[in-house]
Amino acid sequence: MTKDRQDRIRDVLSELRADWAVLSTSDAVCYATGKVIPIETGPSPFTGGPALAFVGRQGAVGLVCSNVEAADLSGSLEAEVYAGFAGDIVDQIVNYRAAVQRMMRRLNVGGVIAVQMGSHPASLNELMPIFIPMDHALDRARAVKTSSEILALRIAASVASAGQIAARSLSCVDVSEIEVLNGIRAVMEQKAGERCALAGEYLAGVDHTAALGTSPGVRRILEGDPVICDLAPRVAGYWGDSCNSFTVGAPSDAWRKMYDSARDTLMLAISTLRPGLTIQAFDAALRTNMQRDGFSYPHHSGHGIGTSVHEWPRIVPQEGALIEENMVLMVEPGAYLPGIGGVRCEHMLRVTATGADVMTEFKFD
Amino acid sequence: MTKDRQDRIRDVLSELRADWAVLSTSDAVCYATGKVIPIETGPSPFTGGPALAFVGRQGAVGLVCSNVEAADLSGSLEAEVYAGFAGDIVDQIVNYRAAVQRMMRRLNVGGVIAVQMGSHPASLNELMPIFIPMDHALDRARAVKTSSEILALRIAASVASAGQIAARSLSCVDVSEIEVLNGIRAVMEQKAGERCALAGEYLAGVDHTAALGTSPGVRRILEGDPVICDLAPRVAGYWGDSCNSFTVGAPSDAWRKMYDSARDTLMLAISTLRPGLTIQAFDAALRTNMQRDGFSYPHHSGHGIGTSVHEWPRIVPQEGALIEENMVLMVEPGAYLPGIGGVRCEHMLRVTATGADVMTEFKFD
Repeated sequence: MTKDRQDRIRDVLSELRADWAVLSTSDAVCYATGKVIPIETGPSPFTGGPALAFVGRQGAVGLVCSNVEAADLSGSLEAEVYAGFAGDIVDQIVNYRAAVQRMMRRLNVGGVIAVQMGSHPASLNELMPIFIPMDHALDRARAVKTSSEILALRIAASVASAGQIAARSLSCVDVSEIEVLNGIRAVMEQKAGERCALAGEYLAGVDHTAALGTSPGVRRILEGDPVICDLAPRVAGYWGDSCNSFTVGAPSDAWRKMYDSARDTLMLAISTLRPGLTIQAFDAALRTNMQRDGFSYPHHSGHGIGTSVHEWPRIVPQEGALIEENMVLMVEPGAYLPGIGGVRCEHMLRVTATGADVMTEFKFD
Repeated sequence: MTKDRQDRIRDVLSELRADWAVLSTSDAVCYATGKVIPIETGPSPFTGGPALAFVGRQGAVGLVCSNVEAADLSGSLEAEVYAGFAGDIVDQIVNYRAAVQRMMRRLNVGGVIAVQMGSHPASLNELMPIFIPMDHALDRARAVKTSSEILALRIAASVASAGQIAARSLSCVDVSEIEVLNGIRAVMEQKAGERCALAGEYLAGVDHTAALGTSPGVRRILEGDPVICDLAPRVAGYWGDSCNSFTVGAPSDAWRKMYDSARDTLMLAISTLRPGLTIQAFDAALRTNMQRDGFSYPHHSGHGIGTSVHEWPRIVPQEGALIEENMVLMVEPGAYLPGIGGVRCEHMLRVTATGADVMTEFKFD
């Protein structure tokens, strides 16, 4: 199932004239091997370094991970599992390095090694003295999704959509943001059949929705509150994402105008998206549409999604890359005004040969 | 507030004859600076490397983090905040390295640099050519908690205790593990006043509680099910932890015997704990007590807790270290038997001058 993705990594190795990729972010490890590394409580204290995926230009693939990360290992994957947890004293860092050494001998890893510079651990300096960065080239190689990835993203999208339905029914006067969000999370995890890492936010009230960068809190919903419900669950390693905005009770006229503008701009995105368009032209069309209504947003117009919740390409003013078939892009126009509140409308869109396939669902007001 | 902790880091630098500590785990960054780095969705895609705390042997302290990690920065902290998120194209890795360089110039960082080997990024190799590991020495220096840490741990413990009360009332026939756990999470986060990273687990049923290493799922609770409820929320950077076991309806006689043994062993731990005892003697006393009843557990008897949910010392058979006043230790005897189910009873204990102060609360059956 991951062979298609491994081939894309090998294309990057050829481009960079490197012999091996050693990948150290949890999303790249999942991309290369299918192995989902738990992330929900941060790096495990029972590891000696990040789990690593090895991908050789000639075909070999291997995984190094701690025994606490080794659940559900595919039998077809060559793995070196080290003791991160044990019933007695254990030195995770020593065990980690030894496992990396075993893997390097087992696969005969050498030559030029391409790594992710943001996460490759210095503890491996002596084991891999020569390495080059592959971050940007790998980001680009991952942007067009394979058919198995699109299936995984569709499942994650359906979990986000179930969350949006729950958000409507759970958003009531006198319930707190934290309470609603955990209720939504229960519905999404029950649908996913597993616990999910969850990015995004649930914000209610004029002040909270108008301010970017705030977090769900204990404040209870009041009649008339606007709500921004941005739900990004990770399901079996792939992320879904969507954002709806609505009000509990009747909206103000000013909020309604903002909402209509964001919704119409998302509709414009769906009708505009197609292969061959530049990202910057797409971004400009969305921003211009909102500006016509007197609104703007201080963030990106969207981003790619896959084993990471934010992937290249980001939909921003200066990105000159072309939109390609089977990219999966989030598009999320919004507006935020003190005294009125905030809105954001976001769908997950697969680029088809001729347009857009909307992967998420929610009820517009 | 963090000066007491910084002094302990400086003691480690003296011991190692190092000039600077550059810390790269989120828990060590919190320990050194008080800054809580979000961990709940894994490493942020808007960073170019882990947030770093700089602590100089001569007194200087600094923080490098991305603008998405910079919320609630203390004004007294010297920080270099780089653009990880921006409205247009941004190179996080370049910006990260530049921020580290600025910090090194600002604080005049040089000489021997002590780092955490499991997380120090290789992207800094050229900026910090000479570094030594400080993992084990730092772990030991953090084991005895300062008074401000004990206060923070007490708050986190009270959140875990609120979760245990909720667990009793939410555990009902026909509700799933995932639904109960999210209900508990809502209560804990509402009490904490913020979203909390959550470690631990909620497991119901004979098969699920008897098997270690399983995850909460969609199965619905049946009459008579045993439950293991292990709740570890992170509140303002410090973790609480506790585990209770109970049944929904009447327990089987066999389960009840296991439960009594684990509860009595935890009671023994509370009456036995004191400064000067070796960890291995403490561990042996607990295991022996359970073995007298015919039970055993294949995991540690407990562990330290602080800005990481598992800290040194681990309470394991060969750990020769002495228990010291103001260590905060988790103690968690349990038993797991196919066909009968599992139990685990865990409290958070502060070592006092003469015994144990129980920081968590729950109702024993």
